[in-house]
Amino acid sequence: MSTVTAPDVVRAAYAQLVVTDIAKARWFWVDLLGFHVQYEDARTLCLRGTDELTHHSLVLSQGAAAALNHIAYRVRTPDDVGKAESYFARLGCPVRRVRKGSGTQGVGEAVRVIDPLGFPVEFFHEIEQADRLIQRYDLHHGAQAARLDHFNLCTPDIPAAYAHYTALGFGCSETIEGDAHELYAAWMYRKQTVHDVAFTGGAGPRLHHVGVATHESHHVLHTADIFGALHKEHHIERGPGRHGVSNAFYVYLRDPDGHRVEIYTSDYYTGDPDHETYRWNVHDDRRRDFWGSAVIESWYKEASPVLGFDGLPQMVSDTLLDESAVRVGADGLG
Amino acid sequence: MSTVTAPDVVRAAYAQLVVTDIAKARWFWVDLLGFHVQYEDARTLCLRGTDELTHHSLVLSQGAAAALNHIAYRVRTPDDVGKAESYFARLGCPVRRVRKGSGTQGVGEAVRVIDPLGFPVEFFHEIEQADRLIQRYDLHHGAQAARLDHFNLCTPDIPAAYAHYTALGFGCSETIEGDAHELYAAWMYRKQTVHDVAFTGGAGPRLHHVGVATHESHHVLHTADIFGALHKEHHIERGPGRHGVSNAFYVYLRDPDGHRVEIYTSDYYTGDPDHETYRWNVHDDRRRDFWGSAVIESWYKEASPVLGFDGLPQMVSDTLLDESAVRVGADGLG
Amino acid sequence: MSTVTAPDVVRAAYAQLVVTDIAKARWFWVDLLGFHVQYEDARTLCLRGTDELTHHSLVLSQGAAAALNHIAYRVRTPDDVGKAESYFARLGCPVRRVRKGSGTQGVGEAVRVIDPLGFPVEFFHEIEQADRLIQRYDLHHGAQAARLDHFNLCTPDIPAAYAHYTALGFGCSETIEGDAHELYAAWMYRKQTVHDVAFTGGAGPRLHHVGVATHESHHVLHTADIFGALHKEHHIERGPGRHGVSNAFYVYLRDPDGHRVEIYTSDYYTGDPDHETYRWNVHDDRRRDFWGSAVIESWYKEASPVLGFDGLPQMVSDTLLDESAVRVGADGLG
Amino acid sequence: MSTVTAPDVVRAAYAQLVVTDIAKARWFWVDLLGFHVQYEDARTLCLRGTDELTHHSLVLSQGAAAALNHIAYRVRTPDDVGKAESYFARLGCPVRRVRKGSGTQGVGEAVRVIDPLGFPVEFFHEIEQADRLIQRYDLHHGAQAARLDHFNLCTPDIPAAYAHYTALGFGCSETIEGDAHELYAAWMYRKQTVHDVAFTGGAGPRLHHVGVATHESHHVLHTADIFGALHKEHHIERGPGRHGVSNAFYVYLRDPDGHRVEIYTSDYYTGDPDHETYRWNVHDDRRRDFWGSAVIESWYKEASPVLGFDGLPQMVSDTLLDESAVRVGADGLG
Repeated sequence: MSTVTAPDVVRAAYAQLVVTDIAKARWFWVDLLGFHVQYEDARTLCLRGTDELTHHSLVLSQGAAAALNHIAYRVRTPDDVGKAESYFARLGCPVRRVRKGSGTQGVGEAVRVIDPLGFPVEFFHEIEQADRLIQRYDLHHGAQAARLDHFNLCTPDIPAAYAHYTALGFGCSETIEGDAHELYAAWMYRKQTVHDVAFTGGAGPRLHHVGVATHESHHVLHTADIFGALHKEHHIERGPGRHGVSNAFYVYLRDPDGHRVEIYTSDYYTGDPDHETYRWNVHDDRRRDFWGSAVIESWYKEASPVLGFDGLPQMVSDTLLDESAVRVGADGLG
Repeated sequence: MSTVTAPDVVRAAYAQLVVTDIAKARWFWVDLLGFHVQYEDARTLCLRGTDELTHHSLVLSQGAAAALNHIAYRVRTPDDVGKAESYFARLGCPVRRVRKGSGTQGVGEAVRVIDPLGFPVEFFHEIEQADRLIQRYDLHHGAQAARLDHFNLCTPDIPAAYAHYTALGFGCSETIEGDAHELYAAWMYRKQTVHDVAFTGGAGPRLHHVGVATHESHHVLHTADIFGALHKEHHIERGPGRHGVSNAFYVYLRDPDGHRVEIYTSDYYTGDPDHETYRWNVHDDRRRDFWGSAVIESWYKEASPVLGFDGLPQMVSDTLLDESAVRVGADGLG
Repeated sequence: MSTVTAPDVVRAAYAQLVVTDIAKARWFWVDLLGFHVQYEDARTLCLRGTDELTHHSLVLSQGAAAALNHIAYRVRTPDDVGKAESYFARLGCPVRRVRKGSGTQGVGEAVRVIDPLGFPVEFFHEIEQADRLIQRYDLHHGAQAARLDHFNLCTPDIPAAYAHYTALGFGCSETIEGDAHELYAAWMYRKQTVHDVAFTGGAGPRLHHVGVATHESHHVLHTADIFGALHKEHHIERGPGRHGVSNAFYVYLRDPDGHRVEIYTSDYYTGDPDHETYRWNVHDDRRRDFWGSAVIESWYKEASPVLGFDGLPQMVSDTLLDESAVRVGADGLG
Repeated sequence: MSTVTAPDVVRAAYAQLVVTDIAKARWFWVDLLGFHVQYEDARTLCLRGTDELTHHSLVLSQGAAAALNHIAYRVRTPDDVGKAESYFARLGCPVRRVRKGSGTQGVGEAVRVIDPLGFPVEFFHEIEQADRLIQRYDLHHGAQAARLDHFNLCTPDIPAAYAHYTALGFGCSETIEGDAHELYAAWMYRKQTVHDVAFTGGAGPRLHHVGVATHESHHVLHTADIFGALHKEHHIERGPGRHGVSNAFYVYLRDPDGHRVEIYTSDYYTGDPDHETYRWNVHDDRRRDFWGSAVIESWYKEASPVLGFDGLPQMVSDTLLDESAVRVGADGLG
């Protein structure tokens, strides 16, 4: 048992979403949000932000029903792929090898698991490199999506999620806690930012959102302005606003299939070895929105189903916490 | 009768507000919003924005109950003060001369009226000049209030307000109108911006807000961030957000007495002689907020009382429109 | 004589530039600077900024040699066109009527003159209206050119230029002056901004630049970044930087024919009747650049020729001031 | 020999500068740049940026002559301090233990060395924690200095500097190289940003500058505007501008003693295990300034002396490259 070590995760790498109309999805993610198309066929789009140097950070696949196919973490070495396989097998999770060429475009040898929280997760090391676009300001447009930053997951048992990711070597930058330090939400990281993954209490497993970084606050405002200009403001679900947690300046959008994306800017360095967790009390109104704005109901209640190895949506469990606790989400009370 | 011509109004010049605690008001308007103190005594603060070259654009006076003492318009020549006196007398309005030295600090000869809408309004030409601060970036702070831009007035009869200000020579930049072009709200100007005055349907006469311009959108965000930082986020009532009407990027705050101020940036030039009114349909969700965000109830319902010549709050009349119409405010339906 | 009154100028309205390659000019002005094409044929482009509601603010005409065809001011009424004709005829200037349909696309009845400074200038009132684009954020791109703001003219006799425009009813917002108040440069306005026209000492008549407003400082930075991204940074002549005079945050670019354009943001309101001229001493280093940066030589020395009624470039005269004075330009000493 | 491993460096942690007038230095670094005072006595200031959670990132010490006392890197564990001692002793460098309480305020056990390049460098692990200020927007002011990012060192032998830091485990994000790949400059990192240290060819060892991150480009502009406002624009040496290398938007300032600081925003993530070095050719004009602006001579030639263990300035050697190569600096040709 002691020989089964966790894989060395580098960062949140990509999400593969099933969309029901690839053309509409292309309009939203490419034309409006500014993702760059790295690969495209009739049923697939591999997209990346302007700062990203690997093949993609978002894959959109045409399918019958909107869902998360899987999230993926990059690991430090090729050996870490094998470590991931052993680690999750040891946990009793469903595990599958994905040989190079048989999985997602551009990605090498990988392993996919259904993790203890019920999420489909890929671990890979090898991925095609891509040209540098960070200074191709002539190509930047829309939300100027720069890089995928994190996954936000709906799960009914936050302490279990926290324990699982702690065992995987993730640090914890911030939490929302009750007066007795019961855990309502947590933000956890491997790279030196506030998070690679965060947990929102609620029925799960479901994908709450993918977080996409842009460079400055005016890019977030411009994102909202574009949707207003096209009279497509119904895609804007929440914000723009400032999170208390993480200090991010954000806007939440829903894509044509209802997948949620956060376009945000500004978090902070977490790379010191003794970086302390910052703990928000659940009664501090600012954790949900630093300016005290109310959170829209749908933001707490709606999320994307996630697929099992059978290609069917995973069953969801209700939160373990009581009704009032349900209203405490990633950013606080509803 | 034909010799009674309207005074030539240059612009919205200042508002004089009664506050119940001048120290708290100083904290809000000077420390947090960044107004510059031009004159100060135990019961009075004369404030101006960093772009303003006249003595003040906001006067705060200690008093027993929060209210608007008066709004003031600057007129083009000393003679226009007399024209204002004759004009409003001719309309049957209460009119008072205010001799230089007996009125508001820094202001010369003036006339005050209770206008046909019930608002206390001053017209003056002469005002002390003040040093240029626009490039004193070392002094800019807080919301970086640059200049007073407009008054927003609650009045039950929008067409009457529109007619009154049209007769005074104001142009109309934007409206909110029903399908039969019934007028729900209007934005009217003398200087070459979107407005010097606007009308929000509702019980009136009351002062809805004073509008204060700042230079860039990040200054609006910083305003909200400062209030959050101090855990005074309850002063933020609405926004930050983008108005459909006027295209302003705004945040609405309430001062310690409940007076409402809009800090905003970005409107547009209206100085061409044939500048056309832009008409929003009351059913376009974007007029209230270009991003489709809901408007908080208090923003429609609450406003500052205005004082009559007797120093008592003016009686208010309910809106002439029906209940659903009440919910249509400066920016649209609630 | 007393009956010859000056026309009532509303604002700087448009410039018509001769370019030698209309396709290259389109790349620069439309693709890169973000002007909107309102009219286009094989030899002509009529362009406007996103805030402008009239047919164009810039006309590019294919021709054999780069030059300014004319600058144009809008006047308040149709009668003011006739007043312009009489006024300049009275001054002994060459004057031509331009009947509606025979002049510039979209413009009605006009008069063109060679003014006392040797510049070709049009006065018109009637111009086609254009759709509102200010909130079409989906179309905004490049420098996000919002509106033409001013013309900057090279002329050897600044006091003469100042006197001519003063007689035309322009106010003066700022000057650069020597210790004995000799005039090195002046910024003059009709609309309520810092300027519609400014004078740079130097050989003239020549067009120094057209000034184009954008909304925020990040738009100016983005303009420079786009040119760098395309390895076309040689189009950037000066800046980005902050002017002491006018407080504008600017970048100067040269188009493929060498015509200079200033993309800038942030000036201030000048509409009060007693607005005072702000006088910079020629020895204050900040007037040229508020941050004390040196001004590149070409910015002082190079400018576009202007055409006479014969279609040939106007002869230029050297400045009346001595050599050291030549090095004092719009923003100060070289 | 094989047991002497390099210490695990986390990041550039702080610089200790000798200043000749602590009051003037306080004005520059605290009042103008916005550093927060964490500790202060008559001869010492310990400062940190608003994002920093450790005791200081800059120490200013009163002394007779301006110099760098030392730069300091934080290491991952207490054991890495010992590793640093052994590692540099093995290299034949002067090495000193600094016991907790006898060195710099707030720092625990440390080791100081004169590294093979002649620079005084401290390695430490333990440092006092400090309160979170990132959301204390009410305290942010001036340049809004957020965190120390990097040191830029003048050294005559760039390949030697590159080799030394490579052996210390640093990655290389960007270089400037000649046609035969001779190395003119290099940017190297441990944390997941573009750099913790960079080398500028020139006489050395000298400190070229400390790099300080701020959040958005408008903060960089505001920094320059404040110095202009106070007529202290001579402290602005270069910029604001965009670096080709690193993509940083920067301004370089000189403090009252001539120490150079870069206030900058915007670099990118470098944490992937196979992050590739981006190589600029020395003939690409954009490496020095992405907009093609010339670099001021002083920026290439002037730098701060660095102290040896004897408290005297280290002797400097001229660059190994020829005269034209001297003109190639951190950002390219002069």
